[in-house]
Amino acid sequence: MPQTLYDTITALAKRRGLYYPSFEIYGGQSGFVTYGDPGTKLKRNIETQWRTHFTNRQNILEIEAPLINPAKVFEASGHIDNFKEHSTTCTQCNRSYRADHLIEEKTGLENVEAQGAEAIQSLLREHKIKCPRCGGPLQDPTLILTMFQTEIGAVNGETAYARPETAQGMFTNFRRAYLHAREKLPFAIAQKGKVLRNEISPRRGMTRLREFTIIEMELFFDPENPDCPYMDEVADQPVKLITEKMLEEGNTEPIETTIHQALQDNLILTPWQAYFMGVSQRFITSLGVPPEKQRFRAHLPDERAHYSAQTYDHEALLEWGWLEVAGHAYRTDYDLKAHAEAQEPTVLRQDGTRYVPHVVEPSFGLDRLFYVTLENAYERRGKRNILRIPRSLAPTQIQVNPLVTRDGLTGKAREIHAALQEAGYTTQYDESGSIGRRYARADEIGTPLSITIDYDTQDDQAVTIRDRDTWTQVRTPIQELPDKLQGYFSGRLEILDLGEKIERD
Amino acid sequence: MPQTLYDTITALAKRRGLYYPSFEIYGGQSGFVTYGDPGTKLKRNIETQWRTHFTNRQNILEIEAPLINPAKVFEASGHIDNFKEHSTTCTQCNRSYRADHLIEEKTGLENVEAQGAEAIQSLLREHKIKCPRCGGPLQDPTLILTMFQTEIGAVNGETAYARPETAQGMFTNFRRAYLHAREKLPFAIAQKGKVLRNEISPRRGMTRLREFTIIEMELFFDPENPDCPYMDEVADQPVKLITEKMLEEGNTEPIETTIHQALQDNLILTPWQAYFMGVSQRFITSLGVPPEKQRFRAHLPDERAHYSAQTYDHEALLEWGWLEVAGHAYRTDYDLKAHAEAQEPTVLRQDGTRYVPHVVEPSFGLDRLFYVTLENAYERRGKRNILRIPRSLAPTQIQVNPLVTRDGLTGKAREIHAALQEAGYTTQYDESGSIGRRYARADEIGTPLSITIDYDTQDDQAVTIRDRDTWTQVRTPIQELPDKLQGYFSGRLEILDLGEKIERD
Repeated sequence: MPQTLYDTITALAKRRGLYYPSFEIYGGQSGFVTYGDPGTKLKRNIETQWRTHFTNRQNILEIEAPLINPAKVFEASGHIDNFKEHSTTCTQCNRSYRADHLIEEKTGLENVEAQGAEAIQSLLREHKIKCPRCGGPLQDPTLILTMFQTEIGAVNGETAYARPETAQGMFTNFRRAYLHAREKLPFAIAQKGKVLRNEISPRRGMTRLREFTIIEMELFFDPENPDCPYMDEVADQPVKLITEKMLEEGNTEPIETTIHQALQDNLILTPWQAYFMGVSQRFITSLGVPPEKQRFRAHLPDERAHYSAQTYDHEALLEWGWLEVAGHAYRTDYDLKAHAEAQEPTVLRQDGTRYVPHVVEPSFGLDRLFYVTLENAYERRGKRNILRIPRSLAPTQIQVNPLVTRDGLTGKAREIHAALQEAGYTTQYDESGSIGRRYARADEIGTPLSITIDYDTQDDQAVTIRDRDTWTQVRTPIQELPDKLQGYFSGRLEILDLGEKIERD
Repeated sequence: MPQTLYDTITALAKRRGLYYPSFEIYGGQSGFVTYGDPGTKLKRNIETQWRTHFTNRQNILEIEAPLINPAKVFEASGHIDNFKEHSTTCTQCNRSYRADHLIEEKTGLENVEAQGAEAIQSLLREHKIKCPRCGGPLQDPTLILTMFQTEIGAVNGETAYARPETAQGMFTNFRRAYLHAREKLPFAIAQKGKVLRNEISPRRGMTRLREFTIIEMELFFDPENPDCPYMDEVADQPVKLITEKMLEEGNTEPIETTIHQALQDNLILTPWQAYFMGVSQRFITSLGVPPEKQRFRAHLPDERAHYSAQTYDHEALLEWGWLEVAGHAYRTDYDLKAHAEAQEPTVLRQDGTRYVPHVVEPSFGLDRLFYVTLENAYERRGKRNILRIPRSLAPTQIQVNPLVTRDGLTGKAREIHAALQEAGYTTQYDESGSIGRRYARADEIGTPLSITIDYDTQDDQAVTIRDRDTWTQVRTPIQELPDKLQGYFSGRLEILDLGEKIERD
């Protein structure tokens, strides 16, 4: 069986410490991953990129609310009633599965969950679906709450749940954030945080985890004054949409339009949602996913979450197909009304009338973005693995190598390495193995530039800079390094701008 | 009753969105806080400062392991047996308390927990301690596991716990990290992460939380070759120690020594621990806590955790007394041996012998650092609150104000604001209320510099810069702003270096 790109990435990630399955030494536990050092750094860089695109604006308040919440929060939000999956258990080996997923695998049907409990039960029987592991008969499916449950207080505790998303942290803090935003709309609350979903039988590693990180925001606006003042930034940006109407007609070939036009044509219901979809496409593009591998796919009414008037999934194309990397939901006034018994949901207009703000939510799964970044960065060139991670995201920016470890080269190399670290670059000093092997290591972990100190360095006070993507080598005076590197990592310069090209034999 | 500094900080933090109690709208839940926007930023800046001091070195691998762990991990680590507290419950109102804390409050004794279950039971009876809320009789104390328990898998789940510290994530990943460190010691694994401790009855808000963030690292070294190559960085640094021997003699007046001398005198058992204690003092000093408000206090043998050969708490002086902000534990080979059935604990020396690496652990509670930073930054000057947060940590670096909102001043102010944001500063644009009120707001939230655009700006192409700490005002040409601000925030320039001083009436 040929290795899939997913397998290749998984193996590379494990070998180089980007990520790997958790609790390996205790037999593993599906749905959990651990990020190693370069992975932790890459993940943090993606998070920073999100802030650059979304939150670094006044009136966008980033908060950090707890992971564990008392049951009351999720009773009010609707999660206790709705955050459920269709589970079926093998009567023979006692393993449990998502019934809708088993049906999808057997029949090729899509989005079976939306058909509801009765249809799922019928389909399971109709297609005579058995336990995929032991072949035993399956019980009729039941709806199971898939939040992690616990108790607050070690004695006489109170029922509590780990949040399955970070949104309720924003809605339950609406009133206080509104004060901090000086009682003016529109404003937004943003949050990055761990969430837990107690999936029945998670598979496909990084794309369906039980513990993962969400980065999302809730933008509150007046439905009678819904304009977004930043619309010009993205108005002309081309996007590909698969609308609700197209889906109803069975048409999944996206139409190409612009943010502005989609809003004009009422394909996107409200300006802030349109704006964030535009920003979302820029953000995903900045991770190295070209626009032609992106699309927005609407949810059908029976597929939408209970709170949403319109949802577009932002999808990225991977080798195996399209993967949801973000959800753009127009939540209307559902959430503030849900908590209305505990928190005043209305705010004052200038004319003295009161209203419940509406909400749009751009929400990203950070671990999926991480995987998508890796798969898009991966290139096989001859026998080499290369991760062409965008230079603003690379876990290590510069690798510093003495050509050999004798004749005083290491001293100069360490000196340059220390100076680059001092200047704020993330660097790696590497003196082990042939220079070819060291370049190969840099390529595989996605380090954009390698600097090599060789026998000529003492004479010409210059070093060789090699880039990961083209393997071009240039010669650069040491004293020009600060300027040149600054230019390269700010995107102003390319490798050939950094020095004189070295023609290799 | 006079307001304590703690009350003042708590009120300020709530009003300005630094932090506040979680789930307020649902009646609150002790042991949980929510960080608002400036709090989230300050917390992140402290985390970055930690990296600058501790982790930005090759061979320090930062990882991110899961919060939820299968029971096996904590059985092996010893937590299931040891992570317990002495609980007592009121037979009348059914409220539960930590028995040792009740005894401490009634008697003034310290560290009652270390005396063990029988002594606690006797003390509770001897001092006739009753329920502090209803006066009812208390049950005999029992040892209660204080980890949050849950199940992995929504159907037929497996018992699991939320980690009460991040250390096990490092120990269970030792083997893989060792490979990524190219099988060379010393190396360290670092981690920042949420942890959960199911305290029986948490009080005193920010200093005893059920959900909080730890930043810590585990340094692995060869006990036969324990030297730390970076010792020179901190060797001469003065520190105040209360040693085990002093405590045994009832002497709590710290001795003043240096890191080097303390190691020479065997007051600190191993070089890496001494090194990290030196770095720790620098780190805490960088948060604005002067060295005279810091000390290291040893644990007595019966007070130490089960894994430790020597522990020093790093303490900071607050208004109400000394607070532990870090623990420096020499964990020897306890942890790798604890997981030895699941993971090979030994590594190879160059001479072919094998050994189990020893571990030292510098561990910080990020939320406590946050509070300590605020309390040390707080100054009351007349009727003003000032947060003198170190300029490298301030949530907002620069506030930009038009003097008034008419006569075209706002346009220029917005332009300068946008340019500063573009240059990477965290900024706040403020045009509401008198300039005095705006300066007061900047002072209270700890913004180091305010820039005001006034009627002269159009003529002299200059602005007024005002600093938070001295209220000095200087006049600076707009074109010099980039250089001057860069100098100020890198610590090279002070307010009087930024422009010509304006003498106020």
